[in-house]
Amino acid sequence: MKPLISFTLLLLVFIAHAADPLPSWNDTAPKKAITAFVEKTTSDGSADFVPPAERIAVFDNDGTLWSEQPMYFQAFFIFDRIKQLAPQHPEWKTKEPFASVLKGDANAALAGGEHALIEMAMATHAGTTTEEFEKIVTDWITTAKHPKTGKLYTEMVYQPMLELLAYLRANGFKTFIVSGGGIEFMRPWAERVYGIPPEQVIGSSIKTKYEVRDGKPVIVRLPELNFIDDKAGKPVGIQQHIGRRPIMAFGNSDGDFQMLEWTTRGSGPRLAGIIHHTDAEREWAYDRKSHIGQLNRGLDEGPQRGWIIVDMKSDWKRIYPSEMR
Amino acid sequence: MKPLISFTLLLLVFIAHAADPLPSWNDTAPKKAITAFVEKTTSDGSADFVPPAERIAVFDNDGTLWSEQPMYFQAFFIFDRIKQLAPQHPEWKTKEPFASVLKGDANAALAGGEHALIEMAMATHAGTTTEEFEKIVTDWITTAKHPKTGKLYTEMVYQPMLELLAYLRANGFKTFIVSGGGIEFMRPWAERVYGIPPEQVIGSSIKTKYEVRDGKPVIVRLPELNFIDDKAGKPVGIQQHIGRRPIMAFGNSDGDFQMLEWTTRGSGPRLAGIIHHTDAEREWAYDRKSHIGQLNRGLDEGPQRGWIIVDMKSDWKRIYPSEMR
Repeated sequence: MKPLISFTLLLLVFIAHAADPLPSWNDTAPKKAITAFVEKTTSDGSADFVPPAERIAVFDNDGTLWSEQPMYFQAFFIFDRIKQLAPQHPEWKTKEPFASVLKGDANAALAGGEHALIEMAMATHAGTTTEEFEKIVTDWITTAKHPKTGKLYTEMVYQPMLELLAYLRANGFKTFIVSGGGIEFMRPWAERVYGIPPEQVIGSSIKTKYEVRDGKPVIVRLPELNFIDDKAGKPVGIQQHIGRRPIMAFGNSDGDFQMLEWTTRGSGPRLAGIIHHTDAEREWAYDRKSHIGQLNRGLDEGPQRGWIIVDMKSDWKRIYPSEMR
Repeated sequence: MKPLISFTLLLLVFIAHAADPLPSWNDTAPKKAITAFVEKTTSDGSADFVPPAERIAVFDNDGTLWSEQPMYFQAFFIFDRIKQLAPQHPEWKTKEPFASVLKGDANAALAGGEHALIEMAMATHAGTTTEEFEKIVTDWITTAKHPKTGKLYTEMVYQPMLELLAYLRANGFKTFIVSGGGIEFMRPWAERVYGIPPEQVIGSSIKTKYEVRDGKPVIVRLPELNFIDDKAGKPVGIQQHIGRRPIMAFGNSDGDFQMLEWTTRGSGPRLAGIIHHTDAEREWAYDRKSHIGQLNRGLDEGPQRGWIIVDMKSDWKRIYPSEMR
């Protein structure tokens, strides 16, 4: 038996080495840049070697790790929460933006822009304990379906990015989410879906308060903004939570510009990538004029800054995990 | 040679297993409780097994991982900064609490309590970039000496706690600092001294702002409080940064009470410990009446809540790493 076992082991080792860690990426420039970067930063003796503790990689979520059209998935969650809570809020029937949500008119509800969204987030995300909110999110994310694809929202994550996250971690990188979305909206499922534990999720937040209710300690969510993790807020959030400048960053919109700038202007090897939504058939195509995930400055300045522009249509073999079957 | 190598290997494995992971702890109740807890939460098949991702252990810093007398070590840093910055602030000569610091009267400078300390922290910690501040802290911590012991402050960490941190990590725990001290004051040396990376350091903070100065992105520290990580703020800080309830917590003062309460009132196996400063000869002895690290409620309620009270005098063989020689 012994020689056979040795041979099987050798074969497994060989397969592991030969296997493509990014099978859903075409062999175009972005994949080559990523693998070259990982190799030079992780090979002993390389001039660009980076110690494991400093291998920090940050990822935007909406539009970078999962889809974000026709609106942020968290907005669907907020709308569903408003419908659920409406019986306790008779005033919402005539009060905007709530009235539009209850009438099923998403466009009118979002006409007030970010201000309207924040008002609705406050009204629906506060007032519970952190444990109650986690259960509300978990119940929703495991059952709610996207109106266009009919998929669970967690089935609309990008297969190439799942592979990239796993590839980085296998090479000693620590992967973080840095999103404008709600930190407590992402944490309940980020570990299961992305392999990213709650302590590596950074996002926007509301204030909370610790108290003891009937002998039971709870953390209560308050209707007050704590932090907006977007644009110039992203480097601030990174410093607050990580305290170290990342060496790799991926985003998809101008809301990620400062994060990519902060990441790439440090000394030593750096890599930044922008996911460019170019695939109207398999996903969505949008950039400069989109109301969600607008991308102007990144397209203009990214290439001259050495940032990789990932063209979803030509650089990705697949979009969603379901295409692996 | 071959049999000899095998024997040596076997011996090494045996020694590794037999070696006491906590050699600076006496074989008293606290050590037994800690090792029993680690064994039952990490043994496959144990009813109390905790998956590695949930093995979160949090530690207060001042008085728990290093000494805090005759005043918080960060206060020594603040005083030194005030002296350094005084030429640029002629008004400090007559303005309290700065005037007392410049006269060398620490007691008068601190007579204003927490308010005075925060005012001085603001004046000395803001106005720099994060990178500049990191360098200022590093320069100070590698040269400044404690007035009583003449040691570097980082030589006044507790050897038994260094062993506990390493023992936990070797058993798949993730160790975090959760301190009322400044987050950016601890991060520059926590990895080297405690083995705790910056992303696992939680503390009080001031607000910061991202900007591009002459083409170079920086994060600027602002003279505005962001978060006080003390008392009921500790569970809030834990939730913000970790997003998961710890299963183990150590503190030494009533400022840690809520952190220990939050940790131990979750379901499943939990362990909390209070470092009781009882050793006036080797360190300091203080508790109920101390102006620093006051401990009342923890002593009263800790034992009935099942918290371990670590008596430094009788439970620790050594205090500082220098005693290992």
